[in-house]
Amino acid sequence: PPDSALHVNKGIDAPETVNPNFVRKSRVLQTVEYYTNGILLGDRTILSQAFTIIESTKPEHQNLAQQIIADCLPHSGKSFRVGITGVPGAGKSTFIETLGMFLIETFGKKIAVLAIDPSGSTSGGSILGDKTRMEKLGTHANAFIRPTPSGGTLGGTARKTAEGIILCEAAGFETIFVETVGVGQSEIAVKSMTDFFLMLQIAGAGDELQGIKRGITEAADAIAINKADGNNITAAARTRMEFENALHLFPRRTHSPEPKVFTLSAYTGVGISDLWNFIQHFESEIKVNGFFEQNRHNQAVSRMHDTLIEALKNRFYQNISLKNKISELENDVKNSKLSPYEAAQMLLNYEL
Amino acid sequence: PPDSALHVNKGIDAPETVNPNFVRKSRVLQTVEYYTNGILLGDRTILSQAFTIIESTKPEHQNLAQQIIADCLPHSGKSFRVGITGVPGAGKSTFIETLGMFLIETFGKKIAVLAIDPSGSTSGGSILGDKTRMEKLGTHANAFIRPTPSGGTLGGTARKTAEGIILCEAAGFETIFVETVGVGQSEIAVKSMTDFFLMLQIAGAGDELQGIKRGITEAADAIAINKADGNNITAAARTRMEFENALHLFPRRTHSPEPKVFTLSAYTGVGISDLWNFIQHFESEIKVNGFFEQNRHNQAVSRMHDTLIEALKNRFYQNISLKNKISELENDVKNSKLSPYEAAQMLLNYEL
Repeated sequence: PPDSALHVNKGIDAPETVNPNFVRKSRVLQTVEYYTNGILLGDRTILSQAFTIIESTKPEHQNLAQQIIADCLPHSGKSFRVGITGVPGAGKSTFIETLGMFLIETFGKKIAVLAIDPSGSTSGGSILGDKTRMEKLGTHANAFIRPTPSGGTLGGTARKTAEGIILCEAAGFETIFVETVGVGQSEIAVKSMTDFFLMLQIAGAGDELQGIKRGITEAADAIAINKADGNNITAAARTRMEFENALHLFPRRTHSPEPKVFTLSAYTGVGISDLWNFIQHFESEIKVNGFFEQNRHNQAVSRMHDTLIEALKNRFYQNISLKNKISELENDVKNSKLSPYEAAQMLLNYEL
Repeated sequence: PPDSALHVNKGIDAPETVNPNFVRKSRVLQTVEYYTNGILLGDRTILSQAFTIIESTKPEHQNLAQQIIADCLPHSGKSFRVGITGVPGAGKSTFIETLGMFLIETFGKKIAVLAIDPSGSTSGGSILGDKTRMEKLGTHANAFIRPTPSGGTLGGTARKTAEGIILCEAAGFETIFVETVGVGQSEIAVKSMTDFFLMLQIAGAGDELQGIKRGITEAADAIAINKADGNNITAAARTRMEFENALHLFPRRTHSPEPKVFTLSAYTGVGISDLWNFIQHFESEIKVNGFFEQNRHNQAVSRMHDTLIEALKNRFYQNISLKNKISELENDVKNSKLSPYEAAQMLLNYEL
C-alpha cells in the first residue's frame, strides 16, 4: 500500500501526490472505482476522502457513498470492533493513544479510531477522535483516526460511523475503536456496532453519575478504572471493588465471559496489557461459541431497520407532489389554524 | 379543584376517594371525558393517570392518549416553560426544589416538573424528576412532579414529555420546568419545547466538559453557577467570569435579552430571586417583541415533522402485507445473504 502518512491529516483537500499505482485526486468527485481501489489498497488519504463523501449531505455524494459502501461490504467484517465509552475527563484519548500504540508496537496491528459525539449537532464541531489529542497514533502509518462526523442527528451521525467501519475494514484495519462520551443514547449506538464494549471510569465520579450509568454498566464487557497512578492508586482500587460488587448484581452471562473490572493508567501504561489479554480472551471465546457471529447478525438486522426508517423519511420529503402541501400545512401550524398533530395526520393522509 | 395532595405520589394506582365532583377510578380505562374533565379541574391524580396512558405503548392507550391530548390542546399554551440542563452533580433537583418553593411561597404559582432522561432506554428506570429528591415540592398541593418516562428512544421519550406539557398546562400549571442531564441530544429536545433555557453549572467542571458544552452554552438564555456557598464562593465567581467571557464570543441576540451568568446557591437560596427576576424580564421582553410567539410557532412546526416521521414509521411496520416480507428479509440479512442496506432498499420497493 502507498505510504500516505504525510497526508493523514488532510482529508479530501490533500494535494495530489505521485504514486506508483495511481495519482490521487482531490476536490473533484472521482469514480466509485477510484475510491474503492484506493481503500482496498489501504490508502489513507483516499479513505479520508471517502469518509468525507459518506458524511456529506449532498445528494450526488450520498449516491456515490452508497456505491462505495456496497463495493466495500464484501471486504468488510474482519476487524474486532471495540466500543469505548467514558465520561468527560475519564481520559479516553490518552487511553486510546496508549492502547493503540501498544497494539501497533507489540503486534504490528493496524488501528482505526472512529467516534460518535452526541453533541455534534449543536456545536457543529467534533471533539472526539481528535488527532491532536493522540499525538503518536495520529501520525503513525498503521493508524487512521477520524473525528466524529459533525452536524445531523445522533442517529445520522451513528449511521455514518457504522458505514465508516465498513470502509476501515475494507482498508485492512484490524482493530477498530469507536469512542463516545456522555450518557445513554450515543453509547447504545456504539454498542450496536461493536463486538466488545469497554467502559472507562475514574475513581470518585460521584453517586448520581454512577446511578445514570447503571444501564451502561450492565452493557459493559469490561470496566477500566483509569488514572490508577500516583496518589490515585488506592482510590482506583476502591472504585474497582465497588464496580466488582455492582457487577455481581447482574444476571450471569450465558454467551460471553463475565465482565471484568481493571485498574490501569493510560499515562504510565500500567495495566494496559492485562486489559488487552482479557479482550483477546473474550474475542476467542465468543468466536468459538458462535456469539460473535450471532451478535453481528442481530446488529445487521437493526441496521436494516434503521436504514429503512431513514429511507422512508427521505422518500416522503423528496416527494415533489407533497412539497406544496407540506409548506401549506406548516403555515397553518404556524398560524395556529391546525395543531401539529392534526397537520401531521393530514400530511400522512395526503400521501396515500 | 379537588385536593389531591395525598395522592400525588400514587399515579394510576391511586385508591378511589370520595370527592364532591366525581369519583376517581383507577386501573380500568375511563372515557376521554373523565380524563379531560379531571385535568381541567386540576386533579393531579387524574393528571397522573393521563400521563401513564400517554406513556403507554399499548395501542388502546395510544388511541385514548391522542384524544385526551386533542381535547386538552385548546386549553394549553399558557404556561412559561423553562428548560433546565446540567451535568450530573450540578444540583438540578435541589435547584428546582428551591426555585419551585420560592415561586409557590412568593407568588402562589402552580409548578410542574417534567424530565427527559437520555439514559431511560437502557436502564429502564428514570432518575430525573424524582419526587424523593424534591421533598417539599413533591408533597406540595401547588406542585406536580412527573419523572421522565422510562423505556423507548430519546425521541419517543421527548415526544411524550412534550405531550405532558400540554396536559399540565390544561391542568392550570403556570410554570413548567423540564429538566435533563448529559450532553447534546436530550438538551436539544428540551430546548425544542421550552421558552427559556437555563444551564446549571458548577465551578471547576473541567475543560473537556466545557468544550462539549460549547454548543449548549450558545443555546443557553442564562447560565447559573450553583453551589456558590461556603468555601466555594470564590471558585464560583471565577467560573462565572469564565462563562461571561465565553458568552462575549457569540453573536449578539437580536430577538431576546443577552444571556446572563449568575452565581447562586440552591442550598441556601442566595441568588435564586435574582435569577427569577431575569427570567421574568426575559419573558416580558420576548412577549412584547413577538419572539415568544414566533418561537412557539416554529416549535409547533418541528413537532409536526416529528409526529409525521413517527407516523410514517408506524404505518410501514403496521402494514400487514409487509409483515412476512420483513421477517423474510430479516432472515436473509441474518444469514448474510443480503446486506442490511440492500434489504432495506428491497423493503422500500415492496411497499410501493
